[in-house]
Amino acid sequence: MARNLARILGGCGSLVPFMKTPACPPRSSSSSSIPPARTLVQMLFSKSRDFSLPNSSWGEEMMRLYEFYNGKSDIETEGEENQRREWKRLPSYNRSLKYATGGVYLSKIIQSKARLFTRNIREPGAAFEYVLFINKEKERCVCIFQAGHLLEGPPGHVHGGAIATMIDTVTGTHASAISAPVMTANLNIDYRSPIPLGSTVLIESTLEKTEGRKLYISCKVTSTDGSKRHTDATALFVSISVAHLLKG
Amino acid sequence: MARNLARILGGCGSLVPFMKTPACPPRSSSSSSIPPARTLVQMLFSKSRDFSLPNSSWGEEMMRLYEFYNGKSDIETEGEENQRREWKRLPSYNRSLKYATGGVYLSKIIQSKARLFTRNIREPGAAFEYVLFINKEKERCVCIFQAGHLLEGPPGHVHGGAIATMIDTVTGTHASAISAPVMTANLNIDYRSPIPLGSTVLIESTLEKTEGRKLYISCKVTSTDGSKRHTDATALFVSISVAHLLKG
Repeated sequence: MARNLARILGGCGSLVPFMKTPACPPRSSSSSSIPPARTLVQMLFSKSRDFSLPNSSWGEEMMRLYEFYNGKSDIETEGEENQRREWKRLPSYNRSLKYATGGVYLSKIIQSKARLFTRNIREPGAAFEYVLFINKEKERCVCIFQAGHLLEGPPGHVHGGAIATMIDTVTGTHASAISAPVMTANLNIDYRSPIPLGSTVLIESTLEKTEGRKLYISCKVTSTDGSKRHTDATALFVSISVAHLLKG
Repeated sequence: MARNLARILGGCGSLVPFMKTPACPPRSSSSSSIPPARTLVQMLFSKSRDFSLPNSSWGEEMMRLYEFYNGKSDIETEGEENQRREWKRLPSYNRSLKYATGGVYLSKIIQSKARLFTRNIREPGAAFEYVLFINKEKERCVCIFQAGHLLEGPPGHVHGGAIATMIDTVTGTHASAISAPVMTANLNIDYRSPIPLGSTVLIESTLEKTEGRKLYISCKVTSTDGSKRHTDATALFVSISVAHLLKG
């Protein structure tokens, strides 16, 4: 299923205009409208929130790991090329459209109530708090995930659907970084031990192989010290054509 | 993973006291407190919202299907045994604890910020709107699901994680109705075609077989007329002991 269009489009700026076509028609529940010109100019200069940056809800473990991977990431320096580092932090927004090249600006023009599932709650720390890093060779992705109290499944523990959502997010981001645009064809998840609400875990994805248009990615969810395996998963993605994207 | 404890406990009233034990300790993000006696009495007589009942956000198709299955469900009549009908509507709450026998009352005593993942947003129609019916012989479950604008994955379409969440919810409810308590061991999901935001779909689960403590359940997500297959899935659940539940 073309679930990663948002991320996909990050590498496909030429596809952005399609997001205005009937291929993705605005529905009553996510109706769009274009604001007046003056408001538009003001909005264009406002900054979109990057949810992958630390906020006051991030606990000690989340911050420690963020600083660890961020320390191994690109450092942007004016007038110089970025230093080559092992990891790169990926930004995160609350609308799919913002992931496209130029999408942050487009999202200010194309107003919609629709929100990215993993970023649909405003209260920091209440639901999904996470940040993704991808390694330079794109063989691996790592996600630091802190599970909020609105993600409950069994009492005191994270819902299996919320775990599946994070696995989908991490592997999908990984796949589209390698070969955008892609469609997810399969997710296969083994649940081994529950994740307590409020805890921080690591989600790591690895590119296993590619076969033609297919990408096979494995994924594991562990405690931050790696001693406890919470979940194992595999994901299959398929590179698709622009025509396929348009069909939805 | 013991993701269905909430539903599990619905058939295991004797397990409810364990929910006060350190097996499910309250965390900072979901801290519990016991209110004063007078407030407590007032609260005990207030009614918990059943999210499986229609609200103003339900569209025509959602209402039509609800009335179809509800018409084939038990009719409660005072002083008489319920009429034997084909289907039974299952109630739905916003806290795991409420699914336990007596849990609706317990949840008023044990206050917590934690909310069931699929019912964590107050605004009707914004996220997951769904109702489940189970057939009398428990061989099948059917869920009518209307996808709100806060469940976005690719622009204009439902996030794969949100679909996984609904599959988990339907098959988990089904499994625990057959053999509570259970743990979900595996979810295997094939995504075939994306689901537009705002649309209503059918999610149907079927018990395929049982082998000792294992329950194999299949699941499909289709358009309401059955002409379009959105998703196929299989789920494996394992019946567990009380000791296993306590380990979390």
